[in-house]
Amino acid sequence: MSGILASQQLAIGIDIGGTNTVFGLVDIRGEIKYRGAISSRKHDAVEDYIDELYEAVMPAIEQVGGKDYIRGIGIGAPNGNYYSGNIEYAPNLKWKGVVPMSDMINKKFGLPTALTNDANAAAVGEMMYGAAKGMKDFIMITLGTGVGSGIVANGQLILGHDGFAGELGHTIIIPNGRLHPGTGAKGSLEVYCSATGVRYTALEMLEKYSGEASLLHNYSKDEIDSKVVYDCAIQGDKIANEVYQFTGEILGRSLANFIMFSSPEAIILFGGLCKAGDLLVNPTKEHMEANLLPIFRNKVKLVYSELKEADAAILGASALVWEIKQPS
Amino acid sequence: MSGILASQQLAIGIDIGGTNTVFGLVDIRGEIKYRGAISSRKHDAVEDYIDELYEAVMPAIEQVGGKDYIRGIGIGAPNGNYYSGNIEYAPNLKWKGVVPMSDMINKKFGLPTALTNDANAAAVGEMMYGAAKGMKDFIMITLGTGVGSGIVANGQLILGHDGFAGELGHTIIIPNGRLHPGTGAKGSLEVYCSATGVRYTALEMLEKYSGEASLLHNYSKDEIDSKVVYDCAIQGDKIANEVYQFTGEILGRSLANFIMFSSPEAIILFGGLCKAGDLLVNPTKEHMEANLLPIFRNKVKLVYSELKEADAAILGASALVWEIKQPS
Repeated sequence: MSGILASQQLAIGIDIGGTNTVFGLVDIRGEIKYRGAISSRKHDAVEDYIDELYEAVMPAIEQVGGKDYIRGIGIGAPNGNYYSGNIEYAPNLKWKGVVPMSDMINKKFGLPTALTNDANAAAVGEMMYGAAKGMKDFIMITLGTGVGSGIVANGQLILGHDGFAGELGHTIIIPNGRLHPGTGAKGSLEVYCSATGVRYTALEMLEKYSGEASLLHNYSKDEIDSKVVYDCAIQGDKIANEVYQFTGEILGRSLANFIMFSSPEAIILFGGLCKAGDLLVNPTKEHMEANLLPIFRNKVKLVYSELKEADAAILGASALVWEIKQPS
Repeated sequence: MSGILASQQLAIGIDIGGTNTVFGLVDIRGEIKYRGAISSRKHDAVEDYIDELYEAVMPAIEQVGGKDYIRGIGIGAPNGNYYSGNIEYAPNLKWKGVVPMSDMINKKFGLPTALTNDANAAAVGEMMYGAAKGMKDFIMITLGTGVGSGIVANGQLILGHDGFAGELGHTIIIPNGRLHPGTGAKGSLEVYCSATGVRYTALEMLEKYSGEASLLHNYSKDEIDSKVVYDCAIQGDKIANEVYQFTGEILGRSLANFIMFSSPEAIILFGGLCKAGDLLVNPTKEHMEANLLPIFRNKVKLVYSELKEADAAILGASALVWEIKQPS
């Protein structure tokens, strides 16, 4: 090392999404100094993708003074495994099978790298820069198209023996419940408490209360999504409100089970579904508390992420860098 | 310190049960060199109890060469909190409210102490001396009168922000299911998969199949317990077998959820219900695998504790000692 202080260094965060890859150079306080993006879909060969990524990132590195000013590269990716640094069978990426992404980027850039899945990266980002700053025990739940999670206990990510821990969206909350078309499981959290789940619940409730008036009838089945349900709910629509009530009940019951596992200081909610605000969080909190043993009640904070949604992926990935052990 | 090697030292394990307190002096390989017991119920004042404990343990300490040969004291106790060293509102102990047991024993003996609940102690014992030796990620489930659990991840006990993590027996597995008379919860794991739970299930099934012949009819309602159900099941009784089938289904589904939380290398089963052997473990394994995401399947070992039931409490408590940070 060349005597540059850690506080002067920047971390590169790279988030590999199904469509785009976004990256940024981030300081230790979580300020993004430079950002950019390339397509994740343009190259069939992962080597060509990495070449393009290198061409896109290097000018930023030069601009801040060269590689000595870069602490390392953190990568968030679907099905990313922290231990191996591989992306393993990610259904939404172009490159099939096992891709040794962390090693390849490490070799190309000559910088330390760390990789994990997007939900784990989000949790580390929250601990480093966001709502979980200073916490040693918390659970991050991402409520988007799917339900993801990152768990921190004793100040460390819970990765499990194989790096796959924290798949809370796939825990079963209603035995033999609704079929998850993607996994084949019945009654998993994700099939109820994702944006897709809210849509399913709305369609089910419209069928159940088919005689009743509802603003939801103004939309075709294909149009009904979590945003439509939200819009109808805030206008006072009874069925739309019941959709969020039910979603919160399921989520709250699940959170109670998670709390009795790792007794976190807080549960941090992130993702598109959080836009429903109190509509979702009030029933969630109610059913969470009702299903807890007394010793856990009124102790666990249920809060929103403090990271801007547009920045969170870069910040989360970059936060991994400060966790990488440096050669001494 | 007086230059005595850690390998020559012994750890004292004290397990405080509702009726008796057992203790032992244990070497680093898990051999119990000396053991004894006193009543947990004789003294109304906890100070008097500790005086008697001191009188009972000191001769053993003298016998091995004095306090220099003792590394410390580990204490397992119901509702024991590792962080505070307190026993908090233990329903089955004589001393009510919050008892600063670890501090009191530390002052009386002048030795480092550590305290946790019995299930956590069992997990540390298993990691130190038993089936989890060398593992960094595992879950210990104790199936006795109740259902307890101790969770290890990244080689550390998961204690949570308040020391109460790992109450897996109280997670809800059947929403609005059977009432737990002790906690008021409906459908928690403990109300199905404890010895008491097996008894409830047997009574329910006898009612459900009231017309059918069963060896269980040879017993009065009061006599039916998990041992009677086991005895009938191994004689081929259909209803008794169905009781274990159902118990295993609930347990297996719960274990699947736990695996998707912390992705352990193994789940270690301990306690009286394990005597049912394959009767319980076969359906448990079947339903555990069936409820897992594919990436977790056929990876997690489901094994029995390797500690003798009579020794496990002392060994577990003593194992805490090797985890205590020594003054350097």
